[in-house]
Amino acid sequence: MTAPLSDDARTLLLSRIKDVPDYPKPGVMFKDITPLLADPEAFAALTDALVELAGRYGATKIVGLEARGFILAAPVAVQAGIGFVPVRKAGKLPGATLAQSYELEYGTAEVEVHAEDLSAGDRVMVIDDVLATGGTAEASLSLIRRAGAEVAGVAVLMELSFLPGRVRLGEALGEAPLDALIVV
Amino acid sequence: MTAPLSDDARTLLLSRIKDVPDYPKPGVMFKDITPLLADPEAFAALTDALVELAGRYGATKIVGLEARGFILAAPVAVQAGIGFVPVRKAGKLPGATLAQSYELEYGTAEVEVHAEDLSAGDRVMVIDDVLATGGTAEASLSLIRRAGAEVAGVAVLMELSFLPGRVRLGEALGEAPLDALIVV
Repeated sequence: MTAPLSDDARTLLLSRIKDVPDYPKPGVMFKDITPLLADPEAFAALTDALVELAGRYGATKIVGLEARGFILAAPVAVQAGIGFVPVRKAGKLPGATLAQSYELEYGTAEVEVHAEDLSAGDRVMVIDDVLATGGTAEASLSLIRRAGAEVAGVAVLMELSFLPGRVRLGEALGEAPLDALIVV
Repeated sequence: MTAPLSDDARTLLLSRIKDVPDYPKPGVMFKDITPLLADPEAFAALTDALVELAGRYGATKIVGLEARGFILAAPVAVQAGIGFVPVRKAGKLPGATLAQSYELEYGTAEVEVHAEDLSAGDRVMVIDDVLATGGTAEASLSLIRRAGAEVAGVAVLMELSFLPGRVRLGEALGEAPLDALIVV
């Protein structure tokens, strides 16, 4: 299936992503999406494409990954008329949670979800801004399945193809699709 | 002006906010909005009310405060067709930023914005989930004015009336309105 983005829309989105050298550390070229968010036409094109994917996936819930993923995922949930569920960094969600740790370059991190926001019949779409190493996304897929729900697909604005995110996610995805609107 | 929320919608929103005792510390009753976000009807009612306020304010930009504010503010920006600008905790935005510190119960914290995302003609609506002590909101108003833009209004889902947020924000608001959809 082709990605749900016209050439014009892709050109628009690309023109609103800014390269910031040496952030967060020397030698890294950071992809800053804040100019895209500040441009209503670009943000609408992004949201429309993700809503289209949500339809293809048959998603019944949208999971957004803290924090930039929240900004992309919440409008998709509202526009598609399906529930939004945040996956947050450790210690940010009140009450009982499911927690899943994952490996970073140095050390480990942990993400959490409210299991009660996901149900056995749910087909869950995971949205984030960037697929880099895939650690957070992989941990999120575990959380969704541990909550008893099904992974319907993972969608990101940008995939960094020089990093092994797609490979790392491969096994965890199973039959579920991984869609990147832009690959850099 | 009356708040842009019918009695039915207010009842629905209230029913989807969960009291979590002793979070983040003993003696505090936390207002958990994740059940509201997971309910598409409630999230749509919330977004519609905030979009209505954005229209009343004549807003040309929506500022969301990290991190729960992102979830409420981004759908408003998309639905209203105006740009979204994140105000983030220190160190999270790449490139040149404006920074503003504010006082916490113990110590200080800092928030940042990309000044280039706000312009002299902009009328900015600030959105967050909860108005508690008002520190982050107050710092955000400073950032907006230092970027050369105008504060059009501040809107929150919930105002905690037993905390001095409205008083603390008073002077910083000037003529700009502060609207809470729900006061608890």
